[in-house]
Amino acid sequence: MNTYGNKFRLTTYGESHGLAVGAVIDGCPAGLVIDTEAIATALARRRKGAPRQEEDTVEWLSGLKAVSPADNSPEGQLVTLGTPIAFLVRNKNIRPEDYSPLEHLFRPGHADYTYFMKYGLRDHCGGGRASARETVVRVVAGCIARQLMPDINIVTESARQLDDPSPSDTYGGVVSCRVTGVPAGVGEPLFGKLNASLAAAMMSIPSTIGFEMGAGFKAATMKGSEYIDMWNTVREPLTLTNHCGGVQGGISNGMPIEFRVAFHPVVTIPQPVECLHKDGHLETVTIEGRHDHYHIERAAAVVEAMTALCLVNLV
Amino acid sequence: MNTYGNKFRLTTYGESHGLAVGAVIDGCPAGLVIDTEAIATALARRRKGAPRQEEDTVEWLSGLKAVSPADNSPEGQLVTLGTPIAFLVRNKNIRPEDYSPLEHLFRPGHADYTYFMKYGLRDHCGGGRASARETVVRVVAGCIARQLMPDINIVTESARQLDDPSPSDTYGGVVSCRVTGVPAGVGEPLFGKLNASLAAAMMSIPSTIGFEMGAGFKAATMKGSEYIDMWNTVREPLTLTNHCGGVQGGISNGMPIEFRVAFHPVVTIPQPVECLHKDGHLETVTIEGRHDHYHIERAAAVVEAMTALCLVNLV
Amino acid sequence: MNTYGNKFRLTTYGESHGLAVGAVIDGCPAGLVIDTEAIATALARRRKGAPRQEEDTVEWLSGLKAVSPADNSPEGQLVTLGTPIAFLVRNKNIRPEDYSPLEHLFRPGHADYTYFMKYGLRDHCGGGRASARETVVRVVAGCIARQLMPDINIVTESARQLDDPSPSDTYGGVVSCRVTGVPAGVGEPLFGKLNASLAAAMMSIPSTIGFEMGAGFKAATMKGSEYIDMWNTVREPLTLTNHCGGVQGGISNGMPIEFRVAFHPVVTIPQPVECLHKDGHLETVTIEGRHDHYHIERAAAVVEAMTALCLVNLV
Amino acid sequence: MNTYGNKFRLTTYGESHGLAVGAVIDGCPAGLVIDTEAIATALARRRKGAPRQEEDTVEWLSGLKAVSPADNSPEGQLVTLGTPIAFLVRNKNIRPEDYSPLEHLFRPGHADYTYFMKYGLRDHCGGGRASARETVVRVVAGCIARQLMPDINIVTESARQLDDPSPSDTYGGVVSCRVTGVPAGVGEPLFGKLNASLAAAMMSIPSTIGFEMGAGFKAATMKGSEYIDMWNTVREPLTLTNHCGGVQGGISNGMPIEFRVAFHPVVTIPQPVECLHKDGHLETVTIEGRHDHYHIERAAAVVEAMTALCLVNLV
Repeated sequence: MNTYGNKFRLTTYGESHGLAVGAVIDGCPAGLVIDTEAIATALARRRKGAPRQEEDTVEWLSGLKAVSPADNSPEGQLVTLGTPIAFLVRNKNIRPEDYSPLEHLFRPGHADYTYFMKYGLRDHCGGGRASARETVVRVVAGCIARQLMPDINIVTESARQLDDPSPSDTYGGVVSCRVTGVPAGVGEPLFGKLNASLAAAMMSIPSTIGFEMGAGFKAATMKGSEYIDMWNTVREPLTLTNHCGGVQGGISNGMPIEFRVAFHPVVTIPQPVECLHKDGHLETVTIEGRHDHYHIERAAAVVEAMTALCLVNLV
Repeated sequence: MNTYGNKFRLTTYGESHGLAVGAVIDGCPAGLVIDTEAIATALARRRKGAPRQEEDTVEWLSGLKAVSPADNSPEGQLVTLGTPIAFLVRNKNIRPEDYSPLEHLFRPGHADYTYFMKYGLRDHCGGGRASARETVVRVVAGCIARQLMPDINIVTESARQLDDPSPSDTYGGVVSCRVTGVPAGVGEPLFGKLNASLAAAMMSIPSTIGFEMGAGFKAATMKGSEYIDMWNTVREPLTLTNHCGGVQGGISNGMPIEFRVAFHPVVTIPQPVECLHKDGHLETVTIEGRHDHYHIERAAAVVEAMTALCLVNLV
Repeated sequence: MNTYGNKFRLTTYGESHGLAVGAVIDGCPAGLVIDTEAIATALARRRKGAPRQEEDTVEWLSGLKAVSPADNSPEGQLVTLGTPIAFLVRNKNIRPEDYSPLEHLFRPGHADYTYFMKYGLRDHCGGGRASARETVVRVVAGCIARQLMPDINIVTESARQLDDPSPSDTYGGVVSCRVTGVPAGVGEPLFGKLNASLAAAMMSIPSTIGFEMGAGFKAATMKGSEYIDMWNTVREPLTLTNHCGGVQGGISNGMPIEFRVAFHPVVTIPQPVECLHKDGHLETVTIEGRHDHYHIERAAAVVEAMTALCLVNLV
Repeated sequence: MNTYGNKFRLTTYGESHGLAVGAVIDGCPAGLVIDTEAIATALARRRKGAPRQEEDTVEWLSGLKAVSPADNSPEGQLVTLGTPIAFLVRNKNIRPEDYSPLEHLFRPGHADYTYFMKYGLRDHCGGGRASARETVVRVVAGCIARQLMPDINIVTESARQLDDPSPSDTYGGVVSCRVTGVPAGVGEPLFGKLNASLAAAMMSIPSTIGFEMGAGFKAATMKGSEYIDMWNTVREPLTLTNHCGGVQGGISNGMPIEFRVAFHPVVTIPQPVECLHKDGHLETVTIEGRHDHYHIERAAAVVEAMTALCLVNLV
């Protein structure tokens, strides 16, 4: 399933080293002026420090109408028509030749093996569909979603977990997210719970390995009398603590929504590794290509995008 | 959304102190003989030690045909027709009078306030729809799902996190789940990832507060060279470690699927607590009703059920 | 798929000669007082003249709260909670013995053969799931949907097509439906068109064989200059004719929505017919059971219900 | 909703006079070699005789891998990867200047008014999203769907309904479709019926106004004894007649699936017409642009495409 959401529906496509990654957004209301600068800023944040540098120019294909801008700028503004918004970002900095030694090899830690087992064939260049390259379109769509919810503020902090890392290795980390401005009453009972929806949204991001709301795993070690968020005698803030992370029974209570997402280390390491050949034997290979030591700061931009995409489907 | 799944679709209903909880299962193949004993056993495990004891008799309403059994037992066997299976479990041990003092009060830690803010009215008896009572139907449906996947084995361990608990208080814990027999290739890219689907399934269970695959949050503190699951020189098991929990790029690799679910403490504590009155003031109340100190062992039965319901939609 | 709708979601179950037919409605807003009298009236209309007479008592299982009525009637009123509304109607007048000669036979014109080919087994009593008995729950749900749209008026006319029918035979007919009060702008482009949604809703009713909007098949014989609905010089009504049936580009224009549904004759005829035996030979049988000569007037009640269920998901 | 299908999911985008029309296909199995010639042929048939001539070159953006062809042709073959297939067809022959007089006018018979009422703004050029231009992508996707069902044969006949048409006017007609090779057992009970699915698919095509299976509206005038399709004494064909059009209880019986689709006349006529101005007054305008007198032959190509898209989601 390459579609996310049921109201603001994002359908994405594109392989890492194919022509383009792109998407169709169905369900965006008419009349929104697209903030192309905010999108450029978010894309720059997503690729900051990335070894593969792309211009990430968004080509808008449909769903928009150019209108004369107030400030007479030559380009005009793009206004949504209510019809599907299609856009793509071309993959310019492609080096498929880097990947030709990997044609019949499954790298450890990657999705090479699982994609092959599922589909019987795969795009061996740079992870194909499983590459984090596809998060470009999530960031674009997330920006549009945020514009639809001007009262909601999404802030992340990313934390590297090792103080003195070895430069010949790779690392993960934790992204903490805090959302303010979500009114009480958002989320659906049972299978459309806000916390379950956020969990699914976060775990759909490449490299994620854990999710927790509020006090999270620590809550499992607390007593009920410590854990329960008691009512405030005044109504603002609503509760004295926020161990539940702003969600009770799957529905927001108006407190900040707080959650943390764990990312495992980058799975391409700058060292020789043993790859599994299609025929079953192992081959030691040093993976070429351009890869991160850290991705946690860049991942934070994707966490924010997915948070926005999750919320815009519920509010 | 009270429906789970897109192939084996479970639609549930029922309030905690209403007439019944029940469900419709749409998409179960024809020809399956229902193992009613396995269902009874799972239901007994779900209610073991619960203060509110119910018989939990399943009434089958549709989708089944009684056929003459091989062993000539008088009752016959129930075989699925391929049409929707409807069943209900009546709520016999109802004591709405326990809850009348709570009619205008929102208990701390519960979903009373959020349901009221969402719907403008609520069933104040025992949590209504938000009560864990609804997990009865998940357990029934989970048993049927397990029967459809005889080669898949789902095992849980529940761990209380405090050694010397105070009997006047309540506790949470962690349920670890290990699934064997899932072949490589199960799960969908991007938004239908197996790990994301499991996360959503688990976080839909009442009292859950965290989810992690394999090494989980600990993976965020590891170096890539430690984290990556290296290929085994022999094919069984496939990798030397299983830090990823058996899922790569959202798709199973054939290793055991391993994850952990954190549960916060039971939110009804046997102590006086301050409740928020609809009018805005606080009132100190000792909540009557029958409640757990621990729910972690019972929760494990629900974790297994939701794991089965998740997998039956993907395999 | 036994679920209809994506906002007001009706999931139905039940075989014709099983214990009950019933449904779960998910997505009905909170605070609606159920008009149980309107439901009883619609059910009476659906069964009027039917050879199999049932009481059709609706048992409400969940999603409702009894509140003290304004008029102090003893029973109180049922108000929706916003949670899933479950109800069932028991099948009291069951005579499975009428059907035992049919256990291995496929009647002509019925769904006996197709269900068997799909599922490999079937409930041979009275059509099982394919029986029009299941429309009882559509009528109940349709009444609730109508209550949610008090400004929309749905009226049908049913027309028998033969003047002098032979009493030893069966007949079909056409139901014309006219809906007023639907504002302009209802319906979705492309695959969620109002006319396409109505077509699917109508063709889901047992015995339907044709659907047309406005001028319908006759429009295929008209010239453009005759067909096009010209604008009125005054705005009410909007157009001088309504050949399009009130829908343009899949979206309502505010004119009455008009369509016609063709029903083929009742497929159980009171004559000996050749049935196909599972083994491949033909057997002449006179079908017992209680069957209609006409069903068109009763079908009109179902057309109205499905129209309401269609519209409540779009407005 | 601009997405069709739940297994083979087609999400489309694009306005008539925008940059491109295009789509994403999610759910196409891996390993299919795309027959680009069959696609070119179908596209040529769709645009045959159309006043606006386009090259309709398909640009493939993702989901495909070029493999060395058996015949050493320089271009290679495109094989599906199992990931989303994205493609677009650029709109080259755009003349927005033809439409500028229509910026504030609603043409009669078109969707101008309804789109404006729904969205509050619209693309006034050539019908925007409501134009039949979008059927280009349905034809491309339909060809891929047909390739997935090599045993199923879809044939249409288009019938103009007037013998001596006036060249200064426009016309509709009826497309008859006959599908062979569909095995018994295809289709779902109740709301996923094969006939209901076909009805929705057909009524989603621009200009459709009626749909009937088998004997259709004529069946409403038949007696049951005439209508019922009696079993053949030999098994091939299964029944002596096919009044039901090959579907019983919503499920195919293995007979040819037969249905007819009525198209109203082209709604742009080469005559002065009164348009409704946004401000409420009428203005007489002769619509420029390039338009058909007949579209029924071209519509047949779209009927075949939608039939294929409908079936590929059910078989």
